[in-house]
Amino acid sequence: MGDRLSLNTATTKPWTLPQAVEGAGRAGVTAVGVWRDRVAEHGLAESAALLRDAGLTVSSLCRGGFLTASSPEAAAAALADNRAAIEEAATLGAQALVMVVGGLPEGDRDLVGARARVAERLHDLAPVAADHGVRLALEPLHPMYVADRAVISTLAQALDLAAPFDAATVGVVVDTFHVFWDPDLCESIARAGREDRIASFQVCDFNLPIATDALLSRGYMGDGVVDFAAITGWVAATGYSGPVEVEIFNQDVWDTDGDTVVSRVRERYDQLVAPHL
Amino acid sequence: MGDRLSLNTATTKPWTLPQAVEGAGRAGVTAVGVWRDRVAEHGLAESAALLRDAGLTVSSLCRGGFLTASSPEAAAAALADNRAAIEEAATLGAQALVMVVGGLPEGDRDLVGARARVAERLHDLAPVAADHGVRLALEPLHPMYVADRAVISTLAQALDLAAPFDAATVGVVVDTFHVFWDPDLCESIARAGREDRIASFQVCDFNLPIATDALLSRGYMGDGVVDFAAITGWVAATGYSGPVEVEIFNQDVWDTDGDTVVSRVRERYDQLVAPHL
Repeated sequence: MGDRLSLNTATTKPWTLPQAVEGAGRAGVTAVGVWRDRVAEHGLAESAALLRDAGLTVSSLCRGGFLTASSPEAAAAALADNRAAIEEAATLGAQALVMVVGGLPEGDRDLVGARARVAERLHDLAPVAADHGVRLALEPLHPMYVADRAVISTLAQALDLAAPFDAATVGVVVDTFHVFWDPDLCESIARAGREDRIASFQVCDFNLPIATDALLSRGYMGDGVVDFAAITGWVAATGYSGPVEVEIFNQDVWDTDGDTVVSRVRERYDQLVAPHL
Repeated sequence: MGDRLSLNTATTKPWTLPQAVEGAGRAGVTAVGVWRDRVAEHGLAESAALLRDAGLTVSSLCRGGFLTASSPEAAAAALADNRAAIEEAATLGAQALVMVVGGLPEGDRDLVGARARVAERLHDLAPVAADHGVRLALEPLHPMYVADRAVISTLAQALDLAAPFDAATVGVVVDTFHVFWDPDLCESIARAGREDRIASFQVCDFNLPIATDALLSRGYMGDGVVDFAAITGWVAATGYSGPVEVEIFNQDVWDTDGDTVVSRVRERYDQLVAPHL
Protein backbone atom coordinates (compact mmCIF):
# COMPACT_ATOMS: atom_id res chain seq x y z
CA MET A 1 0.00 0.00 0.00
CA GLY A 2 1.41 3.38 -0.99
CA ASP A 3 1.71 6.48 1.10
CA ARG A 4 -1.65 7.51 2.45
CA LEU A 5 -0.77 10.81 4.09
CA SER A 6 -2.82 13.76 2.89
CA LEU A 7 -2.09 17.34 3.84
CA ASN A 8 -5.17 19.34 4.67
CA THR A 9 -4.07 22.77 3.57
CA ALA A 10 -5.60 24.48 6.62
CA THR A 11 -2.57 23.03 8.41
CA THR A 12 -0.39 25.35 6.35
CA LYS A 13 -2.94 28.13 6.44
CA PRO A 14 -0.68 30.99 5.34
CA TRP A 15 0.07 29.21 2.04
CA THR A 16 -1.94 29.97 -1.09
CA LEU A 17 -3.09 26.94 -3.06
CA PRO A 18 -0.11 27.05 -5.45
CA GLN A 19 2.26 27.34 -2.48
CA ALA A 20 0.58 24.36 -0.81
CA VAL A 21 0.84 22.31 -4.00
CA GLU A 22 4.54 23.14 -4.24
CA GLY A 23 5.06 22.41 -0.54
CA ALA A 24 3.33 19.04 -0.84
CA GLY A 25 5.53 18.29 -3.84
CA ARG A 26 8.74 19.17 -1.97
CA ALA A 27 7.70 16.85 0.87
CA GLY A 28 6.62 14.02 -1.40
CA VAL A 29 3.03 14.23 -0.16
CA THR A 30 0.67 12.87 -2.82
CA ALA A 31 -2.74 14.02 -1.55
CA VAL A 32 -4.22 17.24 -0.24
CA GLY A 33 -7.45 18.41 1.33
CA VAL A 34 -8.27 21.89 0.01
CA TRP A 35 -10.39 24.83 1.15
CA ARG A 36 -12.90 26.74 -0.89
CA ASP A 37 -11.51 30.20 -0.11
CA ARG A 38 -8.03 29.29 -1.38
CA VAL A 39 -9.55 27.63 -4.45
CA ALA A 40 -11.65 30.72 -5.18
CA GLU A 41 -8.63 32.95 -4.77
CA HIS A 42 -6.70 30.98 -7.40
CA GLY A 43 -9.71 30.33 -9.65
CA LEU A 44 -11.68 27.10 -9.81
CA ALA A 45 -10.60 25.89 -13.26
CA GLU A 46 -7.01 26.97 -12.57
CA SER A 47 -7.03 25.12 -9.23
CA ALA A 48 -8.36 21.96 -10.84
CA ALA A 49 -5.63 22.13 -13.49
CA LEU A 50 -2.93 22.88 -10.92
CA LEU A 51 -3.89 19.91 -8.74
CA ARG A 52 -4.25 17.58 -11.71
CA ASP A 53 -0.95 18.62 -13.28
CA ALA A 54 0.79 18.09 -9.95
CA GLY A 55 -0.66 14.57 -9.81
CA LEU A 56 -2.24 15.23 -6.43
CA THR A 57 -5.23 13.30 -5.11
CA VAL A 58 -7.80 15.71 -3.67
CA SER A 59 -8.90 13.86 -0.55
CA SER A 60 -11.45 16.49 0.44
CA LEU A 61 -12.89 19.89 -0.28
CA CYS A 62 -13.67 21.89 2.86
CA ARG A 63 -16.43 22.70 3.17
CA GLY A 64 -20.15 22.78 2.75
CA GLY A 65 -22.86 22.65 5.37
CA PHE A 66 -24.33 25.29 7.68
CA LEU A 67 -27.77 23.89 6.99
CA THR A 68 -29.54 24.86 10.21
CA ALA A 69 -30.91 28.30 9.34
CA SER A 70 -34.56 28.73 10.25
CA SER A 71 -35.52 31.67 8.04
CA PRO A 72 -36.51 30.76 4.47
CA GLU A 73 -34.09 33.33 3.02
CA ALA A 74 -31.11 32.02 5.00
CA ALA A 75 -32.07 28.44 4.20
CA ALA A 76 -32.26 29.23 0.49
CA ALA A 77 -28.88 30.97 0.62
CA ALA A 78 -27.37 27.93 2.35
CA LEU A 79 -28.74 25.57 -0.28
CA ALA A 80 -27.38 27.77 -3.07
CA ASP A 81 -23.98 27.88 -1.43
CA ASN A 82 -23.95 24.11 -1.01
CA ARG A 83 -24.89 23.61 -4.65
CA ALA A 84 -21.89 25.76 -5.56
CA ALA A 85 -19.67 23.73 -3.23
CA ILE A 86 -20.84 20.51 -4.86
CA GLU A 87 -19.99 21.88 -8.30
CA GLU A 88 -16.55 22.91 -7.06
CA ALA A 89 -15.96 19.47 -5.54
CA ALA A 90 -16.92 17.87 -8.86
CA THR A 91 -14.61 20.16 -10.83
CA LEU A 92 -11.71 19.44 -8.49
CA GLY A 93 -12.40 15.71 -8.42
CA ALA A 94 -12.47 15.82 -4.62
CA GLN A 95 -13.14 12.46 -2.95
CA ALA A 96 -15.42 14.12 -0.39
CA LEU A 97 -17.12 17.41 0.30
CA VAL A 98 -16.79 17.88 4.05
CA MET A 99 -20.06 19.06 5.60
CA VAL A 100 -19.99 21.05 8.85
CA VAL A 101 -23.72 21.14 9.41
CA GLY A 102 -24.08 24.34 11.43
CA GLY A 103 -25.14 25.31 14.95
CA LEU A 104 -28.12 27.11 16.40
CA PRO A 105 -29.52 30.20 14.72
CA GLU A 106 -28.96 33.37 16.78
CA GLY A 107 -31.10 33.35 19.93
CA ASP A 108 -32.42 29.84 19.25
CA ARG A 109 -31.76 26.98 21.69
CA ASP A 110 -33.70 24.18 20.04
CA LEU A 111 -31.11 21.55 19.10
CA VAL A 112 -33.79 19.00 18.27
CA GLY A 113 -35.33 21.36 15.72
CA ALA A 114 -31.95 22.32 14.23
CA ARG A 115 -31.07 18.65 13.74
CA ALA A 116 -34.39 18.04 12.02
CA ARG A 117 -33.63 20.86 9.57
CA VAL A 118 -30.27 19.28 8.73
CA ALA A 119 -31.99 15.98 7.95
CA GLU A 120 -34.53 17.73 5.80
CA ARG A 121 -32.03 19.78 3.80
CA LEU A 122 -29.88 16.76 3.08
CA HIS A 123 -32.84 15.49 1.09
CA ASP A 124 -32.49 18.56 -1.14
CA LEU A 125 -28.72 18.29 -1.48
CA ALA A 126 -28.14 14.56 -1.86
CA PRO A 127 -29.68 14.39 -5.36
CA VAL A 128 -27.53 17.34 -6.45
CA ALA A 129 -24.44 15.61 -5.09
CA ALA A 130 -25.41 12.34 -6.79
CA ASP A 131 -25.89 14.14 -10.11
CA HIS A 132 -22.38 15.55 -9.84
CA GLY A 133 -20.79 12.32 -8.61
CA VAL A 134 -19.81 14.09 -5.37
CA ARG A 135 -19.81 12.43 -1.97
CA LEU A 136 -21.05 14.54 0.93
CA ALA A 137 -19.13 13.73 4.12
CA LEU A 138 -21.07 14.58 7.28
CA GLU A 139 -18.68 15.62 10.01
CA PRO A 140 -19.59 15.19 13.66
CA LEU A 141 -17.87 17.97 15.60
CA HIS A 142 -16.78 17.90 19.22
CA PRO A 143 -19.73 18.71 21.51
CA MET A 144 -18.08 21.98 22.55
CA TYR A 145 -19.11 23.29 19.12
CA VAL A 146 -22.70 22.02 19.19
CA ALA A 147 -24.29 25.44 19.56
CA ASP A 148 -22.18 27.45 17.16
CA ARG A 149 -20.85 25.09 14.48
CA ALA A 150 -22.36 21.62 14.29
CA VAL A 151 -25.43 20.11 15.90
CA ILE A 152 -24.02 16.70 14.94
CA SER A 153 -21.74 15.58 17.79
CA THR A 154 -21.31 11.83 17.38
CA LEU A 155 -20.46 9.43 14.61
CA ALA A 156 -23.62 7.44 15.36
CA GLN A 157 -25.70 10.56 14.82
CA ALA A 158 -23.91 11.28 11.51
CA LEU A 159 -24.52 7.68 10.41
CA ASP A 160 -28.21 7.95 11.29
CA LEU A 161 -28.46 11.11 9.19
CA ALA A 162 -26.62 9.45 6.31
CA ALA A 163 -28.72 6.29 6.46
CA PRO A 164 -31.51 7.33 4.06
CA PHE A 165 -29.00 7.94 1.27
CA ASP A 166 -26.76 5.89 -0.95
CA ALA A 167 -23.37 5.40 0.70
CA ALA A 168 -21.62 6.67 -2.41
CA THR A 169 -23.48 9.97 -2.05
CA VAL A 170 -23.52 10.57 1.72
CA GLY A 171 -20.72 9.39 3.97
CA VAL A 172 -19.16 10.56 7.23
CA VAL A 173 -15.89 12.03 8.42
CA VAL A 174 -13.96 10.40 11.24
CA ASP A 175 -11.87 13.21 12.72
CA THR A 176 -9.90 12.11 15.76
CA PHE A 177 -10.06 15.54 17.42
CA HIS A 178 -13.83 15.59 17.29
CA VAL A 179 -14.70 12.01 18.22
CA PHE A 180 -11.88 10.58 20.35
CA TRP A 181 -13.89 11.10 23.58
CA ASP A 182 -16.94 9.11 22.42
CA PRO A 183 -17.60 6.03 24.56
CA ASP A 184 -19.26 4.39 21.54
CA LEU A 185 -16.45 5.25 19.13
CA CYS A 186 -15.11 1.75 18.48
CA GLU A 187 -18.60 0.46 17.78
CA SER A 188 -19.56 3.49 15.66
CA ILE A 189 -16.42 3.22 13.52
CA ALA A 190 -17.15 -0.47 12.94
CA ARG A 191 -20.70 0.45 11.94
CA ALA A 192 -19.41 3.17 9.59
CA GLY A 193 -17.23 0.54 7.98
CA ARG A 194 -20.02 -2.02 7.63
CA GLU A 195 -22.26 0.63 6.09
CA ASP A 196 -19.41 1.77 3.80
CA ARG A 197 -19.72 5.36 4.98
CA ILE A 198 -16.16 6.40 5.84
CA ALA A 199 -15.62 9.19 3.33
CA SER A 200 -12.75 10.88 5.14
CA PHE A 201 -10.36 10.05 7.95
CA GLN A 202 -8.81 13.16 9.47
CA VAL A 203 -6.23 13.11 12.21
CA CYS A 204 -4.79 15.60 14.66
CA ASP A 205 -4.46 15.73 18.40
CA PHE A 206 -6.67 17.32 21.08
CA ASN A 207 -4.43 19.67 23.03
CA LEU A 208 -4.89 20.56 26.67
CA PRO A 209 -5.49 23.04 28.11
CA ILE A 210 -8.13 23.98 25.56
CA ALA A 211 -6.92 27.00 23.58
CA THR A 212 -8.44 30.40 24.38
CA ASP A 213 -10.04 30.22 20.95
CA ALA A 214 -11.45 26.70 21.33
CA LEU A 215 -11.30 26.15 17.56
CA LEU A 216 -7.51 26.27 17.69
CA SER A 217 -6.94 23.47 20.19
CA ARG A 218 -5.95 21.02 17.45
CA GLY A 219 -2.35 19.86 17.61
CA TYR A 220 0.28 17.68 15.98
CA MET A 221 -0.32 14.00 16.67
CA GLY A 222 1.45 13.20 19.93
CA ASP A 223 1.06 16.65 21.49
CA GLY A 224 -2.31 15.96 23.13
CA VAL A 225 -4.51 13.23 24.56
CA VAL A 226 -5.75 11.27 21.53
CA ASP A 227 -5.04 7.54 21.40
CA PHE A 228 -3.96 7.25 17.73
CA ALA A 229 -3.01 3.59 18.01
CA ALA A 230 -6.51 2.62 19.13
CA ILE A 231 -8.53 4.84 16.80
CA THR A 232 -6.36 4.25 13.72
CA GLY A 233 -6.59 0.53 14.44
CA TRP A 234 -10.39 0.69 14.61
CA VAL A 235 -10.53 2.54 11.30
CA ALA A 236 -8.08 0.14 9.67
CA ALA A 237 -10.10 -2.83 10.92
CA THR A 238 -13.05 -1.68 8.81
CA GLY A 239 -10.92 -2.11 5.67
CA TYR A 240 -10.75 1.62 5.04
CA SER A 241 -7.97 2.14 2.53
CA GLY A 242 -8.30 5.83 1.68
CA PRO A 243 -6.19 8.87 2.50
CA VAL A 244 -5.39 9.94 6.05
CA GLU A 245 -5.67 13.68 6.15
CA VAL A 246 -3.83 15.73 8.72
CA GLU A 247 -5.77 18.87 9.58
CA ILE A 248 -4.46 21.16 12.31
CA PHE A 249 -5.88 24.54 13.30
CA ASN A 250 -3.38 25.99 15.73
CA GLN A 251 -1.90 29.47 15.91
CA ASP A 252 1.60 28.22 16.78
CA VAL A 253 1.53 25.88 13.79
CA TRP A 254 0.34 28.69 11.54
CA ASP A 255 3.17 30.88 12.83
CA THR A 256 5.72 28.22 11.81
CA ASP A 257 7.35 28.00 8.37
CA GLY A 258 5.22 25.77 6.13
CA ASP A 259 7.96 23.33 5.12
CA THR A 260 8.80 22.77 8.79
CA VAL A 261 5.12 22.11 9.50
CA VAL A 262 4.82 19.59 6.68
CA SER A 263 7.94 17.74 7.76
CA ARG A 264 6.68 17.58 11.35
CA VAL A 265 3.31 16.32 10.11
CA ARG A 266 5.10 13.62 8.10
CA GLU A 267 7.25 12.62 11.09
CA ARG A 268 4.34 12.32 13.52
CA TYR A 269 2.20 10.55 10.95
CA ASP A 270 4.94 8.00 10.27
CA GLN A 271 5.49 7.49 13.98
CA LEU A 272 1.98 7.48 15.45
CA VAL A 273 -0.53 6.77 12.70
CA ALA A 274 0.97 4.81 9.80
CA PRO A 275 2.08 1.82 11.92
CA HIS A 276 -1.56 1.17 12.86
CA LEU A 277 -3.02 1.34 9.36
CA MET B 1 -45.23 21.08 45.50
CA GLY B 2 -42.91 23.25 47.59
CA ASP B 3 -39.92 25.20 46.46
CA ARG B 4 -37.37 22.91 44.86
CA LEU B 5 -34.51 25.32 44.32
CA SER B 6 -31.23 24.26 45.88
CA LEU B 7 -28.16 26.46 46.02
CA ASN B 8 -24.95 24.65 45.24
CA THR B 9 -22.53 26.60 47.36
CA ALA B 10 -19.85 26.65 44.64
CA THR B 11 -22.10 29.29 43.07
CA THR B 12 -21.29 31.56 46.00
CA LYS B 13 -17.73 30.32 46.20
CA PRO B 14 -16.28 33.11 48.37
CA TRP B 15 -18.76 32.26 51.17
CA THR B 16 -17.80 29.94 54.00
CA LEU B 17 -20.35 27.29 54.89
CA PRO B 18 -21.91 29.39 57.71
CA GLN B 19 -22.12 32.38 55.36
CA ALA B 20 -23.79 30.23 52.70
CA VAL B 21 -26.28 28.88 55.25
CA GLU B 22 -27.12 32.42 56.30
CA GLY B 23 -27.34 33.58 52.69
CA ALA B 24 -29.68 30.73 51.82
CA GLY B 25 -31.77 31.65 54.83
CA ARG B 26 -32.01 35.32 53.84
CA ALA B 27 -33.17 34.28 50.35
CA GLY B 28 -35.64 31.69 51.61
CA VAL B 29 -33.75 28.87 49.88
CA THR B 30 -34.43 25.59 51.65
CA ALA B 31 -31.79 23.28 50.18
CA VAL B 32 -28.07 23.46 49.51
CA GLY B 33 -25.40 21.40 47.79
CA VAL B 34 -22.19 21.60 49.79
CA TRP B 35 -18.49 21.07 49.11
CA ARG B 36 -16.10 19.00 51.13
CA ASP B 37 -13.45 21.71 51.51
CA ARG B 38 -15.91 24.16 53.06
CA VAL B 39 -17.30 21.42 55.30
CA ALA B 40 -13.80 20.47 56.46
CA GLU B 41 -12.97 24.10 57.15
CA HIS B 42 -15.99 24.44 59.46
CA GLY B 43 -15.70 20.93 60.92
CA LEU B 44 -17.81 17.94 59.91
CA ALA B 45 -19.94 17.57 63.05
CA GLU B 46 -20.34 21.35 63.27
CA SER B 47 -21.40 21.51 59.63
CA ALA B 48 -23.95 18.76 60.11
CA ALA B 49 -25.39 20.57 63.13
CA LEU B 50 -25.39 23.92 61.34
CA LEU B 51 -27.27 22.56 58.33
CA ARG B 52 -29.72 20.60 60.48
CA ASP B 53 -30.43 23.53 62.80
CA ALA B 54 -31.04 25.74 59.78
CA GLY B 55 -33.57 23.22 58.51
CA LEU B 56 -31.74 22.90 55.21
CA THR B 57 -31.99 19.87 52.95
CA VAL B 58 -28.54 18.81 51.77
CA SER B 59 -29.21 17.96 48.16
CA SER B 60 -25.62 16.91 47.46
CA LEU B 61 -22.11 16.67 48.76
CA CYS B 62 -19.46 17.52 46.16
CA ARG B 63 -17.55 15.41 45.59
CA GLY B 64 -16.02 11.99 45.42
CA GLY B 65 -14.56 10.19 42.44
CA PHE B 66 -11.20 10.45 40.66
CA LEU B 67 -11.14 6.68 40.38
CA THR B 68 -9.00 6.29 37.27
CA ALA B 69 -5.50 6.09 38.75
CA SER B 70 -3.46 3.23 37.38
CA SER B 71 -0.80 2.87 40.08
CA PRO B 72 -1.82 0.73 43.08
CA GLU B 73 -0.77 3.48 45.53
CA ALA B 74 -2.83 6.17 43.81
CA ALA B 75 -5.76 3.79 43.49
CA ALA B 76 -5.61 2.94 47.20
CA ALA B 77 -5.44 6.64 48.10
CA ALA B 78 -8.48 7.33 45.92
CA LEU B 79 -10.48 4.57 47.56
CA ALA B 80 -9.56 5.86 51.03
CA ASP B 81 -10.58 9.37 50.06
CA ASN B 82 -13.88 8.14 48.69
CA ARG B 83 -14.57 6.17 51.86
CA ALA B 84 -14.03 9.40 53.81
CA ALA B 85 -16.37 11.25 51.43
CA ILE B 86 -19.05 8.60 51.95
CA GLU B 87 -18.76 8.99 55.72
CA GLU B 88 -19.06 12.75 55.38
CA ALA B 89 -22.11 12.41 53.15
CA ALA B 90 -23.72 10.12 55.73
CA THR B 91 -22.97 12.50 58.59
CA LEU B 92 -24.41 15.45 56.66
CA GLY B 93 -27.46 13.50 55.52
CA ALA B 94 -26.66 14.43 51.92
CA GLN B 95 -29.09 13.05 49.36
CA ALA B 96 -26.25 12.28 46.96
CA LEU B 97 -22.48 12.12 46.87
CA VAL B 98 -21.55 13.56 43.48
CA MET B 99 -18.87 11.47 41.77
CA VAL B 100 -16.59 13.08 39.19
CA VAL B 101 -14.87 9.93 38.06
CA GLY B 102 -11.51 11.29 36.89
CA GLY B 103 -9.62 11.61 33.64
CA LEU B 104 -6.52 9.96 32.21
CA PRO B 105 -3.45 9.41 34.36
CA GLU B 106 -0.52 11.61 33.31
CA GLY B 107 0.89 10.51 29.94
CA ASP B 108 -1.81 7.86 29.47
CA ARG B 109 -4.23 8.02 26.52
CA ASP B 110 -6.21 4.85 27.04
CA LEU B 111 -9.79 5.97 27.69
CA VAL B 112 -11.12 2.43 27.37
CA GLY B 113 -8.79 1.25 30.15
CA ALA B 114 -9.59 4.23 32.39
CA ARG B 115 -13.31 3.56 32.05
CA ALA B 116 -12.77 -0.07 32.97
CA ARG B 117 -10.99 0.99 36.16
CA VAL B 118 -13.93 3.22 37.12
CA ALA B 119 -16.30 0.28 36.72
CA GLU B 120 -14.05 -1.92 38.80
CA ARG B 121 -13.60 0.56 41.64
CA LEU B 122 -17.31 1.19 41.90
CA HIS B 123 -17.55 -2.43 42.97
CA ASP B 124 -15.34 -1.57 45.94
CA LEU B 125 -17.20 1.60 46.83
CA ALA B 126 -20.82 0.67 46.34
CA PRO B 127 -20.95 -1.67 49.36
CA VAL B 128 -19.39 1.05 51.52
CA ALA B 129 -21.97 3.53 50.29
CA ALA B 130 -24.79 1.05 50.91
CA ASP B 131 -23.55 0.41 54.46
CA HIS B 132 -23.71 4.13 55.14
CA GLY B 133 -27.03 4.70 53.41
CA VAL B 134 -25.30 7.04 50.94
CA ARG B 135 -26.20 7.32 47.29
CA LEU B 136 -23.32 7.73 44.86
CA ALA B 137 -24.28 9.97 41.96
CA LEU B 138 -22.18 9.36 38.83
CA GLU B 139 -21.78 12.58 36.92
CA PRO B 140 -21.17 12.55 33.17
CA LEU B 141 -19.08 15.60 32.35
CA HIS B 142 -18.96 17.50 29.07
CA PRO B 143 -16.63 15.74 26.60
CA MET B 144 -14.22 18.67 26.72
CA TYR B 145 -13.20 17.33 30.16
CA VAL B 146 -12.83 13.68 29.16
CA ALA B 147 -9.05 13.60 29.42
CA ASP B 148 -8.54 15.61 32.58
CA ARG B 149 -11.66 15.23 34.74
CA ALA B 150 -14.17 12.57 33.77
CA VAL B 151 -13.98 9.68 31.34
CA ILE B 152 -17.78 9.46 31.60
CA SER B 153 -19.23 11.82 29.00
CA THR B 154 -22.83 10.75 28.48
CA LEU B 155 -25.79 9.91 30.64
CA ALA B 156 -26.14 6.55 28.87
CA GLN B 157 -22.59 5.68 29.85
CA ALA B 158 -23.24 6.69 33.48
CA LEU B 159 -26.39 4.55 33.49
CA ASP B 160 -24.47 1.57 32.11
CA LEU B 161 -21.90 1.97 34.89
CA ALA B 162 -24.64 2.26 37.51
CA ALA B 163 -26.57 -0.73 36.20
CA PRO B 164 -24.89 -3.47 38.28
CA PHE B 165 -25.85 -1.72 41.52
CA ASP B 166 -28.99 -1.04 43.47
CA ALA B 167 -30.55 2.25 42.33
CA ALA B 168 -30.66 3.48 45.93
CA THR B 169 -26.88 3.11 46.11
CA VAL B 170 -25.70 4.27 42.68
CA GLY B 171 -27.55 6.93 40.72
CA VAL B 172 -26.59 9.58 38.19
CA VAL B 173 -26.40 13.35 37.96
CA VAL B 174 -28.19 15.21 35.20
CA ASP B 175 -26.29 18.48 34.86
CA THR B 176 -27.57 20.64 32.02
CA PHE B 177 -24.15 22.16 31.31
CA HIS B 178 -22.58 18.77 30.80
CA VAL B 179 -25.27 16.94 28.86
CA PHE B 180 -27.35 19.48 26.93
CA TRP B 181 -25.52 18.70 23.66
CA ASP B 182 -26.23 14.95 23.74
CA PRO B 183 -28.34 13.78 20.78
CA ASP B 184 -29.63 10.92 22.96
CA LEU B 185 -30.45 13.13 25.95
CA CYS B 186 -34.23 12.89 25.87
CA GLU B 187 -34.04 9.10 25.62
CA SER B 188 -31.31 8.81 28.27
CA ILE B 189 -33.21 10.96 30.76
CA ALA B 190 -36.31 8.82 30.22
CA ARG B 191 -34.20 5.72 30.81
CA ALA B 192 -32.69 7.26 33.97
CA GLY B 193 -36.22 7.83 35.20
CA ARG B 194 -37.41 4.31 34.39
CA GLU B 195 -34.38 2.89 36.16
CA ASP B 196 -34.92 5.25 39.11
CA ARG B 197 -31.37 6.59 38.86
CA ILE B 198 -31.78 10.39 38.92
CA ALA B 199 -29.93 11.24 42.12
CA SER B 200 -29.30 14.89 41.32
CA PHE B 201 -30.56 17.47 38.84
CA GLN B 202 -28.16 20.37 38.45
CA VAL B 203 -28.81 23.37 36.27
CA CYS B 204 -26.76 26.18 34.83
CA ASP B 205 -26.15 27.51 31.36
CA PHE B 206 -23.36 26.81 28.85
CA ASN B 207 -21.84 30.17 27.98
CA LEU B 208 -20.25 31.02 24.65
CA PRO B 209 -17.55 31.75 23.85
CA ILE B 210 -16.04 29.06 26.06
CA ALA B 211 -14.17 30.75 28.94
CA THR B 212 -10.38 30.84 28.78
CA ASP B 213 -10.45 28.47 31.74
CA ALA B 214 -12.95 26.03 30.23
CA LEU B 215 -14.14 24.98 33.71
CA LEU B 216 -15.58 28.44 34.25
CA SER B 217 -17.89 28.58 31.24
CA ARG B 218 -20.96 27.86 33.37
CA GLY B 219 -23.45 30.70 33.54
CA TYR B 220 -26.78 31.82 34.96
CA MET B 221 -29.70 30.12 33.24
CA GLY B 222 -30.59 32.26 30.25
CA ASP B 223 -27.09 33.56 29.59
CA GLY B 224 -26.03 30.72 27.29
CA VAL B 225 -27.31 28.13 24.85
CA VAL B 226 -29.06 25.52 27.02
CA ASP B 227 -32.72 24.76 26.31
CA PHE B 228 -34.05 24.68 29.88
CA ALA B 229 -37.66 24.27 28.85
CA ALA B 230 -36.88 21.07 26.94
CA ILE B 231 -34.47 19.47 29.39
CA THR B 232 -36.43 20.40 32.52
CA GLY B 233 -39.52 19.02 30.84
CA TRP B 234 -37.78 15.73 30.08
CA VAL B 235 -36.63 15.41 33.69
CA ALA B 236 -40.07 16.32 35.04
CA ALA B 237 -41.69 13.75 32.74
CA THR B 238 -39.79 10.98 34.55
CA GLY B 239 -41.59 11.90 37.78
CA TYR B 240 -38.41 13.28 39.35
CA SER B 241 -39.54 15.31 42.35
CA GLY B 242 -36.25 16.15 44.06
CA PRO B 243 -34.27 19.35 44.40
CA VAL B 244 -33.04 21.38 41.45
CA GLU B 245 -29.56 22.52 42.27
CA VAL B 246 -28.05 25.58 40.67
CA GLU B 247 -24.28 25.20 40.35
CA ILE B 248 -22.32 27.92 38.56
CA PHE B 249 -18.55 28.15 38.25
CA ASN B 250 -17.87 31.54 36.74
CA GLN B 251 -15.36 34.18 37.71
CA ASP B 252 -17.76 37.08 37.15
CA VAL B 253 -20.34 35.40 39.38
CA TRP B 254 -17.71 34.78 42.04
CA ASP B 255 -16.71 38.44 41.86
CA THR B 256 -20.33 39.50 42.56
CA ASP B 257 -21.79 39.98 46.05
CA GLY B 258 -23.27 36.68 47.25
CA ASP B 259 -26.76 37.97 48.03
CA THR B 260 -26.98 39.47 44.54
CA VAL B 261 -25.92 36.13 43.08
CA VAL B 262 -28.53 34.20 45.05
CA SER B 263 -31.29 36.59 44.07
CA ARG B 264 -30.30 36.33 40.41
CA VAL B 265 -30.24 32.53 40.70
CA ARG B 266 -33.74 32.64 42.20
CA GLU B 267 -35.02 34.95 39.48
CA ARG B 268 -33.66 32.87 36.60
CA TYR B 269 -34.81 29.64 38.22
CA ASP B 270 -38.34 31.00 38.67
CA GLN B 271 -38.39 32.25 35.11
CA LEU B 272 -36.68 29.49 33.12
CA VAL B 273 -36.76 26.27 35.13
CA ALA B 274 -39.63 26.14 37.64
CA PRO B 275 -42.40 26.60 35.03
CA HIS B 276 -41.31 23.35 33.35
CA LEU B 277 -41.15 21.20 36.46
